[in-house]
Amino acid sequence: VRWISCDLLAPGSAERLIDSVRPTHLLHLAWDVTPGRYWTAPDNLAWLAASLDLAKAFLDFGGQRMVGVGTCAEYDWSHTRMDERLTPTAPDSVYGAAKSALCEVLSRIPPDTGVSIAWARLFWMYGPGEHPSRLIPSVVQSLLQGRHAAVSDGLQIRDYLHVADAAHALAELTVSNVEGPVNIASGRPLALRELISTCAAVCGSSHLVQYGAHPGREGEPPVVTADTTRLNTELNWAPQRTLLQGMTETVNWWRGRIALEEAVRAA
Amino acid sequence: VRWISCDLLAPGSAERLIDSVRPTHLLHLAWDVTPGRYWTAPDNLAWLAASLDLAKAFLDFGGQRMVGVGTCAEYDWSHTRMDERLTPTAPDSVYGAAKSALCEVLSRIPPDTGVSIAWARLFWMYGPGEHPSRLIPSVVQSLLQGRHAAVSDGLQIRDYLHVADAAHALAELTVSNVEGPVNIASGRPLALRELISTCAAVCGSSHLVQYGAHPGREGEPPVVTADTTRLNTELNWAPQRTLLQGMTETVNWWRGRIALEEAVRAA
Repeated sequence: VRWISCDLLAPGSAERLIDSVRPTHLLHLAWDVTPGRYWTAPDNLAWLAASLDLAKAFLDFGGQRMVGVGTCAEYDWSHTRMDERLTPTAPDSVYGAAKSALCEVLSRIPPDTGVSIAWARLFWMYGPGEHPSRLIPSVVQSLLQGRHAAVSDGLQIRDYLHVADAAHALAELTVSNVEGPVNIASGRPLALRELISTCAAVCGSSHLVQYGAHPGREGEPPVVTADTTRLNTELNWAPQRTLLQGMTETVNWWRGRIALEEAVRAA
Repeated sequence: VRWISCDLLAPGSAERLIDSVRPTHLLHLAWDVTPGRYWTAPDNLAWLAASLDLAKAFLDFGGQRMVGVGTCAEYDWSHTRMDERLTPTAPDSVYGAAKSALCEVLSRIPPDTGVSIAWARLFWMYGPGEHPSRLIPSVVQSLLQGRHAAVSDGLQIRDYLHVADAAHALAELTVSNVEGPVNIASGRPLALRELISTCAAVCGSSHLVQYGAHPGREGEPPVVTADTTRLNTELNWAPQRTLLQGMTETVNWWRGRIALEEAVRAA
């Protein structure tokens, strides 16, 4: 593995990068996903522009296989089970629209350019290294430190995938020849309550979770799930971890991190 | 009027331009429309990226009103009368997808950014200065030089607007507060045969037109027309020229151009 760092937002950088590396395969994950602002921030206009520059350079320098990474927020959320071929896209945010826009444009590149293109649509994820302000990290931090965790009623149905499984699926997709949009998800919808209760059980603090103590987000759809037929049959892929295994890894990672922070504070 | 020229494809140029000019209003028309290649050429990925850079810079430097220019090729052409609110988009080309992508992304910019955005969708146009390889110029050149003009059966129904009327509509839209997609078209569908026969009558050479002598384009939809309710009622705009007036202007422009070319060759 050779690491090369590059600021894709710097004008002209994508072309210079691709010209110097001449990659055959490209898996493109760089967007603004800062919690609390990425849905609406105009930064993703710049990331869409940078993504287009990157794709254009990849085509111009003879790239063979490109995988872009999109989101379940591209779909029309008045539907409940998102199917790549049947569910219409109707993004409700700059972020979702930028992802959907890149997917649409890439999918219209003519076959005679000789590049094969897929578009991964990620749903929800959990796992080590997640931003501390997000749901599972905030619950784990509260519980491991003996505090109550105030959560919503937890009745929302979602699809959660361990981040390492998601990464594995993306790698497999990149070296496959499956084209077009592909949902990357567990295919096993669950209520958020099940996710949280598994987390709390692993932490050994089920009694500290207070369901319904947090109002939940306004306008949140009750059910957003993924049809994973393409992922399971065309890519022949399924997650390697159960929820219990994945959550155990996650809580252990947070135990390590909290211990490290305490050691740093004590030093 | 102050003209400033700028290569928007040059990295960083959009931000430098907007920073130096600080415009309140932006009407953005720059794309690749080279006949014969613009539908599929990846150049419009670069133009989409440049358009996003321009839009982002316009937002960042306090712009108030932006109008982007799209195309009837954003719509699903299995429909026949394109309505901004009812007809789904389903572009079938890189060009259409790039335009549709920009429209989608711009329409999701949150209202609190304080910028008002409209999206003009142009249909077919004719008039002085059109690329010589396109339909009306090639017919006019043949007829004015006494040659036959081989055209298709001319039964396709389209909406044609004189280019100066289109420019006037774009200017009016730019200084209005109408938001979202707005079809810019005559609202008077006609068969191509009517367009061509008007052209031939103005040239005084109706007998030189050979309908059906050219096969027409494969996969061309029989009917693509524009609903112009938003243009007519919300913008309160209608074209100023009849087809006969517009075509007379066009043919006269070609007479002048051909005379000039002959004079240059003779000199």
